[in-house]
Amino acid sequence: LPADPVAGRKLAGQCKTCHGLDGIAKIPIAPNLAGESQIYIQNQLKAFRSGKRQHEMMTVVARDLTDQQIADVAAWYESIEVTAKLPE
Amino acid sequence: LPADPVAGRKLAGQCKTCHGLDGIAKIPIAPNLAGESQIYIQNQLKAFRSGKRQHEMMTVVARDLTDQQIADVAAWYESIEVTAKLPE
Repeated sequence: LPADPVAGRKLAGQCKTCHGLDGIAKIPIAPNLAGESQIYIQNQLKAFRSGKRQHEMMTVVARDLTDQQIADVAAWYESIEVTAKLPE
Repeated sequence: LPADPVAGRKLAGQCKTCHGLDGIAKIPIAPNLAGESQIYIQNQLKAFRSGKRQHEMMTVVARDLTDQQIADVAAWYESIEVTAKLPE
């Protein structure tokens, strides 16, 4: 099935404590995910799932995600528009 | 020395082809860095430098960075303000 950002938004309930539902991180050790490309987020979640990328928390989170769930949640975060403002 | 975002902005010249000088990524496989916390970026660059995190390009980029350079470039990207806009 094609990636579904609406389904991904629901799945992001388990991401929001650290990464925010809007993808702006709540804690300094977690990255913002807002506007990250679907492919980047997919690659990272699959790397956590396979063990190629290691992180105490994310390894556990990613372990049980299906490819469809990964695509959906990645599509959700990609769908958020980010704007950057340089310091003065 | 404390992290210096002005020095970091200069160093970011070598990041900008993929990540943008403003931290908005130019290519889908690279993450946005705008507004990521200094500690997150530092942790990732040190993980690439040590080999804990692997990436064909970033492993090479990080290899020769000093702790000071890592802190500086991380401070630059942290200093960029990001705003997220949810889809309608």
